Parts: sequence; C-alpha cells; structure tokens
Amino acid sequence: MNKFGVHAFVWTKDWTKESCVRAITNTAEIGYDLIELSTLDPKSIDVDFTRRQLESAGIGCTASLGLEADEDISSNDREKERRGQAKLEQALAMARDLGATHVCGILESAFQKYTVPPTAEGVKRSVEILHGAAEIAAKSNITIGLEVVNRYESNVLNTASQAVEMCKRIGAPNVKVHLDVYHMNIEESDIQQAIIETGDYLGYFHTGDSHRGYMGSGSIDLAGVFRAVVKAGYQGPITFESFSSRVVGQPLEGILGIWRNLWEDSRDLAEHALMYTRAQLKAAQEAHKQAERSRLPWPK
Amino acid sequence: MNKFGVHAFVWTKDWTKESCVRAITNTAEIGYDLIELSTLDPKSIDVDFTRRQLESAGIGCTASLGLEADEDISSNDREKERRGQAKLEQALAMARDLGATHVCGILESAFQKYTVPPTAEGVKRSVEILHGAAEIAAKSNITIGLEVVNRYESNVLNTASQAVEMCKRIGAPNVKVHLDVYHMNIEESDIQQAIIETGDYLGYFHTGDSHRGYMGSGSIDLAGVFRAVVKAGYQGPITFESFSSRVVGQPLEGILGIWRNLWEDSRDLAEHALMYTRAQLKAAQEAHKQAERSRLPWPK
Amino acid sequence: MNKFGVHAFVWTKDWTKESCVRAITNTAEIGYDLIELSTLDPKSIDVDFTRRQLESAGIGCTASLGLEADEDISSNDREKERRGQAKLEQALAMARDLGATHVCGILESAFQKYTVPPTAEGVKRSVEILHGAAEIAAKSNITIGLEVVNRYESNVLNTASQAVEMCKRIGAPNVKVHLDVYHMNIEESDIQQAIIETGDYLGYFHTGDSHRGYMGSGSIDLAGVFRAVVKAGYQGPITFESFSSRVVGQPLEGILGIWRNLWEDSRDLAEHALMYTRAQLKAAQEAHKQAERSRLPWPK
Amino acid sequence: MNKFGVHAFVWTKDWTKESCVRAITNTAEIGYDLIELSTLDPKSIDVDFTRRQLESAGIGCTASLGLEADEDISSNDREKERRGQAKLEQALAMARDLGATHVCGILESAFQKYTVPPTAEGVKRSVEILHGAAEIAAKSNITIGLEVVNRYESNVLNTASQAVEMCKRIGAPNVKVHLDVYHMNIEESDIQQAIIETGDYLGYFHTGDSHRGYMGSGSIDLAGVFRAVVKAGYQGPITFESFSSRVVGQPLEGILGIWRNLWEDSRDLAEHALMYTRAQLKAAQEAHKQAERSRLPWPK
Repeated sequence: MNKFGVHAFVWTKDWTKESCVRAITNTAEIGYDLIELSTLDPKSIDVDFTRRQLESAGIGCTASLGLEADEDISSNDREKERRGQAKLEQALAMARDLGATHVCGILESAFQKYTVPPTAEGVKRSVEILHGAAEIAAKSNITIGLEVVNRYESNVLNTASQAVEMCKRIGAPNVKVHLDVYHMNIEESDIQQAIIETGDYLGYFHTGDSHRGYMGSGSIDLAGVFRAVVKAGYQGPITFESFSSRVVGQPLEGILGIWRNLWEDSRDLAEHALMYTRAQLKAAQEAHKQAERSRLPWPK
Repeated sequence: MNKFGVHAFVWTKDWTKESCVRAITNTAEIGYDLIELSTLDPKSIDVDFTRRQLESAGIGCTASLGLEADEDISSNDREKERRGQAKLEQALAMARDLGATHVCGILESAFQKYTVPPTAEGVKRSVEILHGAAEIAAKSNITIGLEVVNRYESNVLNTASQAVEMCKRIGAPNVKVHLDVYHMNIEESDIQQAIIETGDYLGYFHTGDSHRGYMGSGSIDLAGVFRAVVKAGYQGPITFESFSSRVVGQPLEGILGIWRNLWEDSRDLAEHALMYTRAQLKAAQEAHKQAERSRLPWPK
Repeated sequence: MNKFGVHAFVWTKDWTKESCVRAITNTAEIGYDLIELSTLDPKSIDVDFTRRQLESAGIGCTASLGLEADEDISSNDREKERRGQAKLEQALAMARDLGATHVCGILESAFQKYTVPPTAEGVKRSVEILHGAAEIAAKSNITIGLEVVNRYESNVLNTASQAVEMCKRIGAPNVKVHLDVYHMNIEESDIQQAIIETGDYLGYFHTGDSHRGYMGSGSIDLAGVFRAVVKAGYQGPITFESFSSRVVGQPLEGILGIWRNLWEDSRDLAEHALMYTRAQLKAAQEAHKQAERSRLPWPK
Repeated sequence: MNKFGVHAFVWTKDWTKESCVRAITNTAEIGYDLIELSTLDPKSIDVDFTRRQLESAGIGCTASLGLEADEDISSNDREKERRGQAKLEQALAMARDLGATHVCGILESAFQKYTVPPTAEGVKRSVEILHGAAEIAAKSNITIGLEVVNRYESNVLNTASQAVEMCKRIGAPNVKVHLDVYHMNIEESDIQQAIIETGDYLGYFHTGDSHRGYMGSGSIDLAGVFRAVVKAGYQGPITFESFSSRVVGQPLEGILGIWRNLWEDSRDLAEHALMYTRAQLKAAQEAHKQAERSRLPWPK
C-alpha cells in the first residue's frame, strides 16, 4: 500500500517550533501518512522536538535536499566533493534521528542551473560518493532517492532512464529513483512508459502539476500518471509537492523561479491533493482490474 | 452549487421496498444529494413509500425514462404519439408526487436502435408534444431534460448542438439539454466545446466513463470534461450513471448492450464516483482561478 | 513496414464499374498501398474487372464483411451456422480471386445489435467454424482478422483481450485480431494497453476517429494510439475507415446508425487521413527512439 | 492563411555563408514559407547575402532574440536600459534590411534565469522602451512579438494573460503576444484556454514539443493546441523550434540547458514538423467544421 505524504513547503518556509507544530498537525489532521522535511538548512531543524511532534501526531517523515554549488559531487573538484559528501552524511544522520525512511532530492549533483554539460569523470565520482552514502544509509534502513529533475535544475539526471542507469552503476539495493511529475512533464518523451520502465528501481514519487499548483489544475495527464504507477506495481511513498510565492521565500523562490502566487490556502490545497490522489489511484486500480475482467464475455 | 446524484441502476434493477430502502439509504450514507429513479416501469414504483424514504434519508430525487418503440413521439404516427404523450404525462405526475426536480432521458424519441433517419415532420411533432409536456411540468416546477445519446440509442438528438436547437424550437424555459459523457465520447467532435456552447441550455449532466464502468477507468478525458462544466458556469445536478451485468437484467441489459461485468461492488463504485467527481470539479475550479490569478506578476 | 489502406466506403456505397475505377484510381493516386473492399454484397463485385483495376493502379486489397443475422455462427443454430460457414467460404474464395491478403470484419458472429448475451455453446461453435475457415484461408495465404466491435454491433468480441482468447481457442496461425480505434474508444479501459497486450496477435488495424469522421477531429487520443502501435511492434496494414451520410446509403446507414453528414469530400478526407497517419506514426517512432536515446547524458 | 516557418537553429548554430545557404535552401525545399533567424549575435549575419539567398529561394524571414543580462530593460538600471534599447533598435534595423515581418523573442527582459521577482518600476520602464521600439518597428511594417517563456528564462512574462496585459499597457497595434508551446506546457493552467483568450493579441506562434524534440514525440497535447489555434482565429506565422546538442553549441547550449541529443537529422526533423503541423491544423479545422455541421440531423 502506498503511503501518502505532503512536502513541508506547502505549510511553511522555515522550521520554527510554531511552524513545525502547525505543519505536522495539519498534515496528520488531513489524513496524510507522512511529511517530507527539507534539510536544505539543517541548522534550522530541532530534531528532538520534530520527532516528538511526529510521534505525537502519529505520522512518519522523509527528508529531502539538493546539494549547493560548492557541494557538487559531480564537479570532479575534490573540495566540492568533500563538502558534498559531508552534507549527505549530515542529512543521513539527521534523517536517522528524525526516524525518516527516505532521503531524497538532487543528491547526485548541485541543485542549480548549469551552463555546461556533465563530464564522465564527474559522474563517476558522484557514483562513488553515493555508493559510500548508501552504505551509511543502509545501517539506518534509509532508502536514498536520486531525484530526476528538469534541465534547469541539474545536468546529470533529467530522465528516468538515466537515473536507472545511475542506480545500476551505484549498485546498492537502497539507492532508488525519485521521480517527480513536474519534471517528467518537461523531460520525458513518454511519462507513462518512463514510470513503467523504472519499475522496481522506483523508490520515491512526487506528485503535483505542471505549474506546481493544485493537482489537476495544470496540463499534466495525471490520470495517465497514476495508471503507470499502478502498472509499475509501485508501493512506495507518493508525496505532494507544490510551491506558491504565498509561502516560499528567498533563497528558494529564486532557485525555483517562483514568480507567481499559485494558491493562497495551504490547507485547502493539501486536502484537495490527498482526495485527488486517492481518487485517481483508485480509478487506475479499477482500470487495471477491468482490463483483467474484460478477458471473456462467455463462460469457459 | 452543483448537487451530486447517483442513478438507481447502480444499486438495483427493480424497485421492491427492500431495493428502494437499500438504494436510498446507501445513496444518502455516501453523501449524495439525490438519486435518479427510472420510471421506465412506472407500475413498479410505490410513490408514497419512496417519497417517505427520500424524506427520511434527507435526499432528493430526479426521474428518467426513455420512450418505447410504440410510444415514439418522433414517429409521425398518431397512435404512437398519443401513447408517448400519455407516458410523458404519467412520468411528470409521478415525478411531481415523488418530489422530483427533473424529468430526463430520451423523451424526444424512442429509446431504441433506429434503422432509418428521423423525418422533419416527425421532429416537428416531437417538438409540439414536448411543448405541451413542458407546460404541465412547469406547474410542478419540474425541469425537462432532453438527453443527447449516441447513434445506437436514438436518431433525433446525437449532439449537444442539436439539442440546443430542439430546445429553441420548443421554446419553454423549463426544457433543457441533458448531456451524458458516455454518449458525448462517441458523438461530439469536441466534448469540452460542446459543453461550453450548450451554456445556459445545460440542465442535467450525467457522468460516467467510456465503457460505463468506474469513473476514471475508461478513455474519456474527464479532467477536460469538468473544466468545461466549470467554464459553462453549470450549477445543476451532476449524476453518476454506470451499468454492470452484475445488477442490470433484461430488458435493459439487451437495450443497452451490457455484455460484461464491469464491476461487482455498487457501494465501492458509488463512493469512488463521488470522491472522484468532487476531486475533479475542485481541480477544475482551481484551474479557473489560476487562469485569473496568472494575469500579472508585478504590482500595478 | 506498415501498409496504408482506405476503406472503399469512403469513395462509394456500390461497386459498379464506374465506382470501382473511381475508388481504386483515387486510392492509388493519393499514395495508399491498398483498398479494403466490402464483400457484404458479393454479387455486386465483378472480381476480374476489380483485379485488373487493382493491378493497373499498382495497389493491393483486403476484404471485409460482417455476417448477417441468419448467418450467425455464434447462434448455436445449425441452419444459421451452415449459411454463415458458406458465406465465409464464399468471401475467402472471392478474396483469393481478388488477390486479397486479409479477410476481416465481424466474422465470429452476426453484425447486429443483439438483445441477449452470447452463450458458451454458441461461441464454441463459432470457434470451430472459424478453425475450418482458417484452413481454407491458409491455402491462399490469407490472414483472417476477427474484428473487435462495440456492444451495439456484436456481443461476442467487444475487447481486444477477448479476441486474443478467441484466437488462442481457434489455434490457427493465420487467425488474428482486427482492432478498430472507433470501437476501442467505447469498450477498452486502456486503449494503449489493449493494443500493446494484443501484441503478435494483432493482424489488422482500422484507424478513424470517435464519430467516424476526419482523423483527429474527434475525441480519441490518436497520438497515444500510434505510440501503442509502435510499442506493439505492429507491421501489418493500417486502414482508414470513415462513414458519412454523404456516401453511405441503406442498409448500411441503418446498421451503422449514420444519421449525420460528417464530411462532403471523399478525396480531401482520404488525403488528410494518409498525411495524418504518416505524421503520427513517425512521431510515435521518434518518441520510441528518444526514449532509447535518453538513457545517458554522459559518455560511458 | 497561416505561414509555416522553421527556426534557423534547427539547421545551424552559426551563420557563415555556407550555413546560410544550407539553412535557407533546405527550408525552402521542404516547403516552409519562412525561416526564423536569430539576431542574438548580429555581427555574424551578412544581411545583404542573407536577403539575396531568401529572395532566390522564394521564402521570407522573421527575426528573434533575447536581451542579455546587461541589456535588461526590466532592470530599472539606466545603463542596462540604454544598452537594451540600442539592441532592440539594432535588431529592428537588421530585420528591416532582411525584409523580416516580425521581431520576436524575450524582448521585455533579459533572457536568463532570474533570482528575484520583477519590480513594478522595472516593468514600467520595459513598457516605455517597448513603446518606443514599436514606433520604430511600425515604420518598417514590423510586428513585435513579446515571447512568453517559462520561469527559468524570464521573470516578466510567464503566462499568456500577463503578455496580453503588457501589450495593453504598451498600447501599440504592432506589439503582439508571441506564444510557444514548450513554455506554455510548463506555465499555463489551461493551454487551450490561454491561446483562445489571447485572441487577437496573438501575433507569433512557436510549435515544438515538451522536450524540444520531434513534434508529437513529447507530452504536449498538440491536437488540443491546434484546436485552440483554430478557435482563436489565428492567421499568423507558425514556426517550428527544436534544439538538440547535435547542432546547438555554447553559449546557447548553456542558456537553454540542452544536455541531450534529441535528434540527429535536421532535415528529417523539419520535414516531419511541417507534415505534422499541416495534418494537425487540418484536423483542427475539420473538427471546427464538424461542430458546425452537427447542428441539425433533420431538414428544417
């Protein structure tokens, strides 16, 4: 059974105690199973307080981040690699202490607009460092999800098939592909096929829509997306991500290019996303059953 | 605000007291606002009992039927016209007594597979008879909905624009167009445009999917359908219709061509349809707001 | 390489010498590889004349038909079976003499609106008779295509998976599935999946659109259809079928329910269909290549 | 009647005489009406030679560019404004000498990934400078097209409705909206509605697909796009734009984030794009006619 999650940035851009309580309480009240916490700014997170809030609310969590430019492990620059490795290890330690099941995001490179393509040597180094991170993660039963993002956020993993290849090179059972419908809409030739072919390598899934607003209010064929999720046999987390200038501030607003107010009411947005996801997932499951049920009109 | 309904054939093919109680109770428990009752076989309906059940459950109702071959008011055959007119008046009287707000379905012709096209004179007679029926309906504040169905169920109204034209000819404010996504999928060049152009003539709306099974499990672009419903400003009933050989028996099975078991569990089907409809309608409303919200990125 | 064809009913409802010349000449001039001839009325076809016209124009042909009610080989009625078997043998003989590569259509039952479901015994008899027909067809290198049609045209084969099962029961290598997008739009839960899963059983393919008019002017996701055709590795004929009251007369108009004039100009329609099919098929092939090309952004 | 064009970057990244001849010859041979020339690097263009090649080939041209960071007329920085204004005037002069009918692209701001939102004052200055440019353009009968691009390429115009508002503020009849399907797929809630509502403000149109490869090989509903183009009554140029690392080099590769080889063969790509565009546009026009034709099934 898939667990349903919501990204913390739907609720808040910071992680003060008040924000932490508000985000976790709302997430649980709506009926989500987990909240995805950003560890972009690890110092802002009071781990013990957050864990107690999660336990009290009865939900789980996952953690996500993107490496910064000077932490780029695909740079073939030893200093940046060292800082990137440290950032990954810090995130894994924090995830362990938070009780997170997954550490996801742009872990394989910096989270930035590149100006040149990746190099073979840089990718090779990224593979090696992630292999090491995977061993650390395994000790805490944490799955690492390598996020596939669009061309403006990384130059290393832009398509699902690239990420599957990267997972194969890393060769650790707890390193999986993290797909996101917003990015797939820009990069994949065939979103459904990409999800199906990722298959067992799929380890984390972000829903949303083409402009990152309300689910179903953009141009992505979300009915098709959920059909593919069912066909792939995916049983992992499905987490809703959405950004509005209403909540997101600098520096994320700048990195993500959030120039518009796509929504006002976090709670209304998140409630709808859960209902919408459940409705589409169930429809996809029924389509799957009907395909089976349609085999024969006559008794054998 | 749209009211949400479900067709009684989702629950039962007959209308015994037991069936009546079960259908109405389930409809209300799930959260629907109304149930659509078939008056194809008026003698089977205990009007007083049904009305009390509806009142007790706190939901409303609508009524629907299709004329039989020997009641065809588009036939230009006086005997058939007379029987058809009587059938319509009987249905309106029953609807009034049930407290129904709408009488819908294939009222403009027989509900059958024709073998020849309609004639101008036959359509003219149908218009006249429906004009008379509208006057009777008006006394009970009943809206008449002329259902647009596919080529295999009638030869008179196969597209929304034909139905708008028919309403104009009838010229009664309580005669409206009844659209159904299953039929539109077969006949309309552009489902969304057809809904939008029907506009204020739209008076009743059937949801479902291309094979008449679970919503979202067929091939209709339902996201687009609900976008159009919102763009058309439609505020009337949205009723879910679905047929499975699990429930439907003869003669309807034969008329509708229900050769497959598309679902087993009426309650699961109906619960999903309501959740799915609400999720898509809300998504469509948010898309509409976002289109407005996207006007300007900078302060005026 | 797929061959492209067009149904003769795009050009003419009869098969006089004039009609035959006009249909074949136009088909060849536009650039089609073959014409599909209806053998519903075998007496109307001058086989030698037609064959010479085809040879002169440099195109091939296929043949199609639907059994009539009193020829229904799924009826479990020995007299009807006998007539149906004779009709099939007659069609195969004519196809052989015409040089046709395929005999397709509703061969497994009558081409009619049924009022009751099929019976196990009737289907069993149909399987047996088609097995015999397949042996005769094999001698002339003819492929038999069992057409999957909507619920209003037959009760035996409404979905691709039913047809695959029927082919398996018949167990003859030259009996294949004949799919048609118009019918799939009504019956399949997932058109693309149905095409892909038919796989090597797919032997004939009808394009068109949801209302049987111009390709791309209805509501079918034809881009998705051609993606699936490519994914299925299908290399057989792709034939365009379209019906307008402009050309079709009785009795076909009545059987098919053609109540509207969906187009006026056969040549314009057929030219567009070929261009449209080529454009979509090429797009689908490129999507397929891109999925392969997207594997890696960096040199290995 | 729409004119069909192709962007020069499909053929070449530079504009040597050899490249100029090759690009223009291929464009004309395939049957395009015009080529879109990039004036990002004006010094590289031999205007007289190019004009003679265009005349000899019998095709027209349009010009496009994006302002550089230090030419940003939305910056509220007088030095940048001055350089931007000069760049626009230079482009208009070159366009006039080339015989171009349109000057398009990111003219309202820099063509870059911004890190902060636009300011009201910056937009106001951009409006004023474009008003001046429009007066110069008018003398040469040149239409200015303000391109609506995604959040990663500008922060000023990300949606069609923003661009309509900007045109209204500029208030010059020859300043129009330049839409591009690639960008719309990321930003618009409803691509079709956005095109229709742009209406008479639409002055230039870029086709392509979601990953900027072959038309129809990505995830955009191009059938819907062309329906909207027809509904909007748009009669202006439709130009195909596509980028592959096969042709594009630095600095454009870096600005656009072209990390993948989406195609190899420029000619095959461009031939398909023209066929695909014609097939879809014709299908959309026929859908439009069918909607009209479907009004009535019976003689009045």
